[in-house]
Amino acid sequence: MTKLVKRRSVKAGLPPGTLVYIGDKEAEQAKISVIDYDENEFHERTLSQIRECLAFANKTAVTWVDVDLVHQVELIEKIGECYGFHPLILEDILNTDQRPKVEDFGEYLYVVLRMLACNGDNNGIFSEQISIILGSNYVISLQEREMGVFASLRERLRSGKGRMRKLGADYLAYALLDAVVDNYFVVLEKIGERVEKLEEQLVSSPTPDTLHEIHKLKRDMIIIRKSVWPLREVIAALERGDTSLISDSTRVYLRDVYDHTVHVIDTLETFRDMVSGMLDIYLSSVSHRLNEVMKVLTIIATIFIPLTFIVGVYGMNFKFMPELEWHWGYPALLLFMLGIVAGMMVYFRKKRWI
Amino acid sequence: MTKLVKRRSVKAGLPPGTLVYIGDKEAEQAKISVIDYDENEFHERTLSQIRECLAFANKTAVTWVDVDLVHQVELIEKIGECYGFHPLILEDILNTDQRPKVEDFGEYLYVVLRMLACNGDNNGIFSEQISIILGSNYVISLQEREMGVFASLRERLRSGKGRMRKLGADYLAYALLDAVVDNYFVVLEKIGERVEKLEEQLVSSPTPDTLHEIHKLKRDMIIIRKSVWPLREVIAALERGDTSLISDSTRVYLRDVYDHTVHVIDTLETFRDMVSGMLDIYLSSVSHRLNEVMKVLTIIATIFIPLTFIVGVYGMNFKFMPELEWHWGYPALLLFMLGIVAGMMVYFRKKRWI
Amino acid sequence: MTKLVKRRSVKAGLPPGTLVYIGDKEAEQAKISVIDYDENEFHERTLSQIRECLAFANKTAVTWVDVDLVHQVELIEKIGECYGFHPLILEDILNTDQRPKVEDFGEYLYVVLRMLACNGDNNGIFSEQISIILGSNYVISLQEREMGVFASLRERLRSGKGRMRKLGADYLAYALLDAVVDNYFVVLEKIGERVEKLEEQLVSSPTPDTLHEIHKLKRDMIIIRKSVWPLREVIAALERGDTSLISDSTRVYLRDVYDHTVHVIDTLETFRDMVSGMLDIYLSSVSHRLNEVMKVLTIIATIFIPLTFIVGVYGMNFKFMPELEWHWGYPALLLFMLGIVAGMMVYFRKKRWI
Amino acid sequence: MTKLVKRRSVKAGLPPGTLVYIGDKEAEQAKISVIDYDENEFHERTLSQIRECLAFANKTAVTWVDVDLVHQVELIEKIGECYGFHPLILEDILNTDQRPKVEDFGEYLYVVLRMLACNGDNNGIFSEQISIILGSNYVISLQEREMGVFASLRERLRSGKGRMRKLGADYLAYALLDAVVDNYFVVLEKIGERVEKLEEQLVSSPTPDTLHEIHKLKRDMIIIRKSVWPLREVIAALERGDTSLISDSTRVYLRDVYDHTVHVIDTLETFRDMVSGMLDIYLSSVSHRLNEVMKVLTIIATIFIPLTFIVGVYGMNFKFMPELEWHWGYPALLLFMLGIVAGMMVYFRKKRWI
Amino acid sequence: MTKLVKRRSVKAGLPPGTLVYIGDKEAEQAKISVIDYDENEFHERTLSQIRECLAFANKTAVTWVDVDLVHQVELIEKIGECYGFHPLILEDILNTDQRPKVEDFGEYLYVVLRMLACNGDNNGIFSEQISIILGSNYVISLQEREMGVFASLRERLRSGKGRMRKLGADYLAYALLDAVVDNYFVVLEKIGERVEKLEEQLVSSPTPDTLHEIHKLKRDMIIIRKSVWPLREVIAALERGDTSLISDSTRVYLRDVYDHTVHVIDTLETFRDMVSGMLDIYLSSVSHRLNEVMKVLTIIATIFIPLTFIVGVYGMNFKFMPELEWHWGYPALLLFMLGIVAGMMVYFRKKRWI
Repeated sequence: MTKLVKRRSVKAGLPPGTLVYIGDKEAEQAKISVIDYDENEFHERTLSQIRECLAFANKTAVTWVDVDLVHQVELIEKIGECYGFHPLILEDILNTDQRPKVEDFGEYLYVVLRMLACNGDNNGIFSEQISIILGSNYVISLQEREMGVFASLRERLRSGKGRMRKLGADYLAYALLDAVVDNYFVVLEKIGERVEKLEEQLVSSPTPDTLHEIHKLKRDMIIIRKSVWPLREVIAALERGDTSLISDSTRVYLRDVYDHTVHVIDTLETFRDMVSGMLDIYLSSVSHRLNEVMKVLTIIATIFIPLTFIVGVYGMNFKFMPELEWHWGYPALLLFMLGIVAGMMVYFRKKRWI
Repeated sequence: MTKLVKRRSVKAGLPPGTLVYIGDKEAEQAKISVIDYDENEFHERTLSQIRECLAFANKTAVTWVDVDLVHQVELIEKIGECYGFHPLILEDILNTDQRPKVEDFGEYLYVVLRMLACNGDNNGIFSEQISIILGSNYVISLQEREMGVFASLRERLRSGKGRMRKLGADYLAYALLDAVVDNYFVVLEKIGERVEKLEEQLVSSPTPDTLHEIHKLKRDMIIIRKSVWPLREVIAALERGDTSLISDSTRVYLRDVYDHTVHVIDTLETFRDMVSGMLDIYLSSVSHRLNEVMKVLTIIATIFIPLTFIVGVYGMNFKFMPELEWHWGYPALLLFMLGIVAGMMVYFRKKRWI
Repeated sequence: MTKLVKRRSVKAGLPPGTLVYIGDKEAEQAKISVIDYDENEFHERTLSQIRECLAFANKTAVTWVDVDLVHQVELIEKIGECYGFHPLILEDILNTDQRPKVEDFGEYLYVVLRMLACNGDNNGIFSEQISIILGSNYVISLQEREMGVFASLRERLRSGKGRMRKLGADYLAYALLDAVVDNYFVVLEKIGERVEKLEEQLVSSPTPDTLHEIHKLKRDMIIIRKSVWPLREVIAALERGDTSLISDSTRVYLRDVYDHTVHVIDTLETFRDMVSGMLDIYLSSVSHRLNEVMKVLTIIATIFIPLTFIVGVYGMNFKFMPELEWHWGYPALLLFMLGIVAGMMVYFRKKRWI
Repeated sequence: MTKLVKRRSVKAGLPPGTLVYIGDKEAEQAKISVIDYDENEFHERTLSQIRECLAFANKTAVTWVDVDLVHQVELIEKIGECYGFHPLILEDILNTDQRPKVEDFGEYLYVVLRMLACNGDNNGIFSEQISIILGSNYVISLQEREMGVFASLRERLRSGKGRMRKLGADYLAYALLDAVVDNYFVVLEKIGERVEKLEEQLVSSPTPDTLHEIHKLKRDMIIIRKSVWPLREVIAALERGDTSLISDSTRVYLRDVYDHTVHVIDTLETFRDMVSGMLDIYLSSVSHRLNEVMKVLTIIATIFIPLTFIVGVYGMNFKFMPELEWHWGYPALLLFMLGIVAGMMVYFRKKRWI
Repeated sequence: MTKLVKRRSVKAGLPPGTLVYIGDKEAEQAKISVIDYDENEFHERTLSQIRECLAFANKTAVTWVDVDLVHQVELIEKIGECYGFHPLILEDILNTDQRPKVEDFGEYLYVVLRMLACNGDNNGIFSEQISIILGSNYVISLQEREMGVFASLRERLRSGKGRMRKLGADYLAYALLDAVVDNYFVVLEKIGERVEKLEEQLVSSPTPDTLHEIHKLKRDMIIIRKSVWPLREVIAALERGDTSLISDSTRVYLRDVYDHTVHVIDTLETFRDMVSGMLDIYLSSVSHRLNEVMKVLTIIATIFIPLTFIVGVYGMNFKFMPELEWHWGYPALLLFMLGIVAGMMVYFRKKRWI
């Protein structure tokens, strides 16, 4: 199951700006891919050294540097040196449990997003941090792990079709944001399917597993919520902010992403409402079942306990029990007991138990 | 049952502005009906090509283009070309799960509404998207499905009575809004009837079906809520916005629609409160019933179990049991047991169980 | 029981401003009473035609027109004609399920209030609409039904004592508002008494009726809430609004009504909190009772079921059961069973069940 | 128990400004004590007539008039005449269920507070109204009942130590406020003790009394809440208000009282959270107990009911039952039943019931 | 367990500014340590008299005075005298249950924080007050108890590495804040571990202890909440405040601490949501268990009670019972009873009980 808190405590006591990666370290090498494009030209390379990026820095073309696996502290340090970023940004890139935020440093904007992904089937949702740094003619995106959300974007750039190659770095940053938010819809749909499956299960045959699925759904929605709510503010800040890095035509598109984010939040809240309602339904169907069980027990016990008592009476060994001598005693008693059963039945029907 | 989420994921990875219809595609042809009117003249036609609309564009008269079945991507594309709409608008028209919103593009306003409809009797509520584009002398309304809410409006235009023919396109747009909100009252009334029926059921004979009806009511109200809450903001934005497309006299009418929307929200919240209360009542009536059942069981068991023990005692086959030899043993025992029953009865009455 | 929604749907499809009364129509004639007063003079008449009101219109004295039973569409139409009111106002007067609001039309203010009344003893609360139109020297009040809240006000005007006769139409409008809000306290007191009665019942002997009374109380409070919350905004808008129809000295009094309204809301919320708490208490007292019942059952069953087994053993008809032949077998067994009972008792006491 | 609503309905229908005391009238005479002081002089008197206060009015010294038992309508009327207060203030003084508020009348400020007091041990909390009128060189405090909160203040004035004698009427008003808020901490501490006692009880032995104590605590906290939440706004209004009656140096002290009020609210909300949690704990401990009881019953019944059946079989009087004739039939049966018991035990242990 | 309220009542009635320590007094001597540093120089001393601090006051270097154990009233009084602090500050330092706040006195800022610490393993969390006074070239920190959070800071100052020695008193104050907030993450991680442990326990084997652990977790989170929520406002006020004591470069760092605080709040709220969900899970798993227990009881009772009745019938001693004489009576009856058991089994399977 997804960890709730990352081990941020390793940083307590260290001076601010100290670069420590708090996620799980992996053995693999970080991957740096650079795309440099304008309307006419397009270059794509995979680098081993971040320093080589600077070769693209002075051109008028837009440079997109995509770094996967940010756990390498030295790499992040070098990026900071090359581009002259504030040390707190570098710290935030490595502290991969940031909540989404945007910070305006004048010459560049620093945006933190959270990418959502499903852990296989029904196995919970986890979120990974994506940092985007937008400069005047470059965009640097840093992902905690390679997750392929930007693949279609890269394809669109390669093909050269559409608006994208004609527009600046701000449009590229928007496109990255859009790709992340579009991905939320994929996750939401999976959640929606689980909600609907749960609803059906609840009507047909609620089991304790239903309950645990409700709990898991709630947990997952809490994780999504933590990623999406602050994102709304981030995009609103980008759209309305007074930075000159984002052009007015791009702001129209940002408004569109904003609407999508609000849509995601809306849908999420709807799911939350529905899942809360389901818990009530589950609990009351459990207590309804208990009721049914108890009714069966009570009917059986109420009918047979008195009868058992009666036959017990005539099983006593008293010397002088006149009824035992009667010729029709036995059949008379059977009839009498039949009468009791009938009376009970009438009573239960009046009480609407049967 | 209504789907909770539309399949928006088909769009993930596509560039913004790509036109893909995300609803269920239907075989039928889209219907384009055009009404062109001013105080004196009135023309009504059904077109097969959107291009023919432009014939009406230059006149001073108000042109109302009503398009049903928006699922045809090419049609929407052509509308965009003819009138020069922003690609994001066209995308929103086809993404038929938008939340209500208004966007001001200077020369035209784009409004998204959600129309509510009942799925037969008690079979849940679904919502369809209606897009309205208001220009200086035209209104384009695009419905996901033909639902007849605008029929009476068309009739009023034809008859030529009332204010409508004398006023501009903004009044027409208001009238469309008003028709949609008036329709909410129809839906609310149905909900209200269901709430009252539930209330009666709850008092007379709560069953597990009551519970599922509560759940369905809650679900339906969540759907209505999702449509109505953002609508309030939309109408407020229209009323207070600084667009020149809406005249001051129309704004007075918009304030009236705003009041209606607030009224709808108010009533909805009242229903929500009541339905929440009903769940509590249901749950506690279920547990009250359990109590009743248990009391009957306990009374029966508490009376007869000890008696059965006693008769069991005298059913033992010990050689030496003096009581069995007594002449009055049997009737004495019967009396003794009668005494026990009486004592139990007193105890239960003291406990207020019977 | 009070209807939750009025049949507003009859209006769907009609053009805005169409006058249709949506409440229950009654056979009686509307009652128009006019009071015309200034510091020195006082005239009171009951009119049959609204047109006669205009005779008072040009004087400097304050004219108060009070119309009961607003269901007559023609009457409202004539009032509109005489005074030149906006058609939307006339529509709102007849749509008697408006939420409280104030609208400023420059020359006159339109205020909608809701009057609360109890339906006999414990039989629920209903609300009726009161419309007040305040002009420069006239006040028109329109009540859905005659309810007598303004009787004492009329008396004060007749007697000529106090500030009222010296002040303008705005003070009269304030006095009407104050009479309505004062009446809320009467309703709240009744609610308070019911809450206290419930509390006592809950401690002494909770029954399912307690539950239904809680439900009815909640329902009534929802109705009051719907009337009072928007009223607060209405009075705040009147107090702070920049209309010239209300003088500064009257605004001080409006602030006082505002305080009263806040007080009503406060008390209502307190009641809501308490009634919510009561439901919890009720539910847990029900489950406590269940517990008690189950304990009795368990004690009885746990003691006697094993004993019954034992006596069953010695009721068997095996040929060779040595114990049956023993002389002291029977009393020994009785002693043994007594020991079991004692052991059980010790166990139950340890468990704190008895 | 404290009444929830005062009988304000006696006022419905009376003109605004009518002076009627709505609390319980008491036989005693009102007490008027006057303290007149500046840095050098100090006079203290108990008056019988409010008119005598005016003797102090023209001096530069600060005059503090403290009136206990405000139920005497004539007294309040005379105060109003002497000082020329607005009639609505006099009405508010007598309507002793006001919510805390401040009103600025230019020459004087009118502040309403609520004093909290405990009704003996664990017997609920009630609140009394304190009105404070702050003029340029006088402070009038009016208490519903004599409660001694100002005793230490009076002592400090008499002793002449500290800042108080050197500062103006606004500092005196602050000191009164501070005394009231300090008293809240005393009440909160009692509440805190009750919360902690409840917590212990809940862990050791929850009884239905625990539930009623929770209910009483909640009720008391609702009453405190009603007094404290609006007080915060009152003090904020005093601190930030633009009245010239309060000097800047006193505002620093008001900020301190404000902090205390926020602290009171914070602590109260913490208690509320905890008490809500306790209800959950209580309810689940009740249902846990039910579980325990049911388990015992089930274990006993499940073991002995089948055994009783078996011994019943061999108690039948069929002529031809071969087992009865077997020599080892009886011990074999006993062994068989022992086996059943052992099997059951294993089953229960697997289910973790024993 | 941590006390919920400190004994603030000892202060009721005392004049504002009176210095009384409200925590538990301890025997130990207060510890005063002074660090005086600039880029080049570094002095560290432990003082016995606060007066000696003033020796450092006039230098341009930054002076950090750290006082542990603030319970000594005379010490605080002397600090007040030396630096000329407002008496309300001194009072707040000693009233160690303040909520976090910042007060700007022009020449110095007074900040109150709360430090969190765990009481051993799982034994609850308590919070201690830390006061920080920031002047132009000094920082005074006052801790209720020595807790070592500033140890690493002191170490960094000693080593002279990093930014810290080069920057002013405001950066030092920031560093203190940062150390406190970093420490929150340590506490949060412990909470997170407890939440995860609880979740596992809930799935595998919920016991009443689980419930008490949930209660304790909630309690601890309430305490953390009380410390962290107001801290957010404090840091926001510092960052945006218009004091000249904090330089712009430090404000960037404060924004970083602000982000951390929001992160802490976010995580805390996530935990709260999860723990609330757990309670529901616990309650419903308890009622599920009850259901299971009841089913077993019902199955056993429903099968054997009728059978016991039947064997009881043939245990009766009637003279004339023909069945008893039949040769195959006994085996026939056994078969008949087997049939009943089989029928029951089918019924239970249909009901999905087994």
